[in-house]
Amino acid sequence: MPLRLDSRDAGFAAAFDALVDARREADEDVSRAVTAIRADVRARGDAALAELTRRFDGHDLDVTGWQVPKAERQAALAGLAPDLRAALELAAERIRAYHAAQRPADSETVDAAGVRMGARWRGVDAAGLYVPGGRAAYPSSVLMNAIPARVAGVGRLAMVTPTPKGETNPLVLAAAEIAGVDEVWRVGGAQAVAALAYGTDRIAPVDVVVGPGNAWVAEAKRQLYGVVGIDMVAGPSEIVVVADGANDPAWIAADLLSQAEHDPTSQSILFTDDAAFADAVAAEVERQLGTLATGATASASWAANGAIILVGDLLESAPLIDRLAPEHLELALADPEPLFAAVRHAGSVFLGRYTPEAVGDYVGGPNHVLPTGRRARFSSGLSVLDFMKRTSFLACDAASIARIGPAAVALAEAEGLPAHARSVAVRL
Amino acid sequence: MPLRLDSRDAGFAAAFDALVDARREADEDVSRAVTAIRADVRARGDAALAELTRRFDGHDLDVTGWQVPKAERQAALAGLAPDLRAALELAAERIRAYHAAQRPADSETVDAAGVRMGARWRGVDAAGLYVPGGRAAYPSSVLMNAIPARVAGVGRLAMVTPTPKGETNPLVLAAAEIAGVDEVWRVGGAQAVAALAYGTDRIAPVDVVVGPGNAWVAEAKRQLYGVVGIDMVAGPSEIVVVADGANDPAWIAADLLSQAEHDPTSQSILFTDDAAFADAVAAEVERQLGTLATGATASASWAANGAIILVGDLLESAPLIDRLAPEHLELALADPEPLFAAVRHAGSVFLGRYTPEAVGDYVGGPNHVLPTGRRARFSSGLSVLDFMKRTSFLACDAASIARIGPAAVALAEAEGLPAHARSVAVRL
Repeated sequence: MPLRLDSRDAGFAAAFDALVDARREADEDVSRAVTAIRADVRARGDAALAELTRRFDGHDLDVTGWQVPKAERQAALAGLAPDLRAALELAAERIRAYHAAQRPADSETVDAAGVRMGARWRGVDAAGLYVPGGRAAYPSSVLMNAIPARVAGVGRLAMVTPTPKGETNPLVLAAAEIAGVDEVWRVGGAQAVAALAYGTDRIAPVDVVVGPGNAWVAEAKRQLYGVVGIDMVAGPSEIVVVADGANDPAWIAADLLSQAEHDPTSQSILFTDDAAFADAVAAEVERQLGTLATGATASASWAANGAIILVGDLLESAPLIDRLAPEHLELALADPEPLFAAVRHAGSVFLGRYTPEAVGDYVGGPNHVLPTGRRARFSSGLSVLDFMKRTSFLACDAASIARIGPAAVALAEAEGLPAHARSVAVRL
Repeated sequence: MPLRLDSRDAGFAAAFDALVDARREADEDVSRAVTAIRADVRARGDAALAELTRRFDGHDLDVTGWQVPKAERQAALAGLAPDLRAALELAAERIRAYHAAQRPADSETVDAAGVRMGARWRGVDAAGLYVPGGRAAYPSSVLMNAIPARVAGVGRLAMVTPTPKGETNPLVLAAAEIAGVDEVWRVGGAQAVAALAYGTDRIAPVDVVVGPGNAWVAEAKRQLYGVVGIDMVAGPSEIVVVADGANDPAWIAADLLSQAEHDPTSQSILFTDDAAFADAVAAEVERQLGTLATGATASASWAANGAIILVGDLLESAPLIDRLAPEHLELALADPEPLFAAVRHAGSVFLGRYTPEAVGDYVGGPNHVLPTGRRARFSSGLSVLDFMKRTSFLACDAASIARIGPAAVALAEAEGLPAHARSVAVRL
């Protein structure tokens, strides 16, 4: 049974605090294990990768091959069922259009003092894309990670993905072809992230590593932040659904389960102002759980992390939602705008009764790689900006430095930096 | 003596590789010490802060006070020499104008399928600004960190700064007043960063921590990335100056020394195509070192990390500069544009003979908090974006989900996520 709270109950504040605080950090065991793997890949390169792949993925890279050859990726695309290929291509086109609009413009201005200044954006030279294997081998992830990189103008795109027992996923390979990935390496886990960051004899280093993964992958990215750029530290997926009693309980139950089926650690939370509707959704969740192939996972997630929160007025839920800062926020209301305007912290918002979060996972256009674990308070979903960097610039001439330079000299002297002062003063 | 290389010499590639690789990571001792401090602050809060401040800064917070009171900050501003106050205000105004132009616009569109989507930017609720104490207590840093936060619309701005032996720096306090800082805490080091990230009884937690600091501060930020947002992992400061023989050697020597005087670990590198000019600059550096109050520091930096690199053609230096990806790049050329266009990786570029890097440290407008240690390959200087986050949104109606939903259902089924498929299918 999921947690059930009522915001008008006496114990609500404490119980809600506990719900917020429950979404916390990587455990120390994972951190230590990742530190060891990272050091091993850095020291021994490909030999470490081969050994760790044998141990964790159960295949020998020298037998299965280190990369998935271009021909195999092309064959995967050619072999796709026509409706699936059309679906992937529609998704790619919509994702590309949304992200193309994100490309920042260079800027340049000359101000009143005659100083020219601005900023110039460039794509990074190389990016690495992590794509989970096994249960979470999602072609949609390939599109969501690779397309923004291509739109950013990244020179080289290297994908890493574990292929347990050596088995590749044709749908993932087809998506990589559609998105324009350059290299597909059969490595996964923390070792793959380390290989991308440090480089090995076979895998050239990249500048940015993105993509979702399990706790080891997330911790490896966190540890390697600074050696490379990363998108964000990703944790278990989450959704908050705000729904009034005019919704079909079966729709809302399906939405909650679409998050719960990802993983037992996923979290689905319903906010409603209608106790009878809450009961109806809870009953629908139980009914649908029995019909889902992913029922065991969804059931575990719903029981451990699910919550139904009854509030007096849905608009009141805005500060509570901000505390949770959910990855996904669905506002299943006839007019979602007032609540949308009141919420400050959410990764991505799905507005109205006809926008289930799952449509955004695939074909909406906005990115589905989003901040989890309350990080929407300070971070954003994956975007073209994650694959670009900005160089600022400044140009004075003799006249303009004469105007602004004396202030720089005064400040440099006050800060006890005489060479700073001199380098300006000699030009005045 | 600094390193001296000629790109036409046989051993150049290997020697340049060594120069690039020398700028590397935090050592393990710092990392372990910071882990312990972080855990201590998290577990014991203010008690740990008080103890660590006694040990590292030599004063008792319960005696000196935890915060610098508003009245003391106002008095510092009122007591400022008029020329210094005018200089700080000019700097603040120019920094504000440059950063105001960075504020991203919200976006919204309805596409051909009838799907409404876009992105909304909001400032974070609270930001923490680290300002180094002691040798590096720079009012310019306060402006460069605080003003972008204010422009971003951050709700609460908390500054932390060590006050060795309890002594505050009036110039830093005055800058905090001009920039609109809300709180000034007398704590520094890794412990201050941990307090901002986790919160203590006295210091409310923040969402983003920015600002330069020593190796301990940088490592604390790196470790706490994910708990809070951070600007970047900052390392020792660097400059590359590209200068032809038409420059005054005394000007270029001053520019190199303006970086070297920061710290013995700072790095100044000159690229030139004129061997006689290189000799003249080297001689000027030696001469000016004797006249600088910061000569000991600058001399140590120049000897240990300085370099003069002779190239056949200055435009040839672009790929070498990209390898270094310097924090600061000064192009002291009559026409710097072709080289500026050819360089991909630099934090900030200073164009022409009249734009010494130091003018940008204070009053140029662009931020002086910039990526170091080759991180300009993938990261950018501090900006308004570091204090904001983007929420994407999507809205379908019955007609538009009917158009794009079937593709989502097909992909969800192919990915083995039946609840995803159902949550879309029920609305078709």
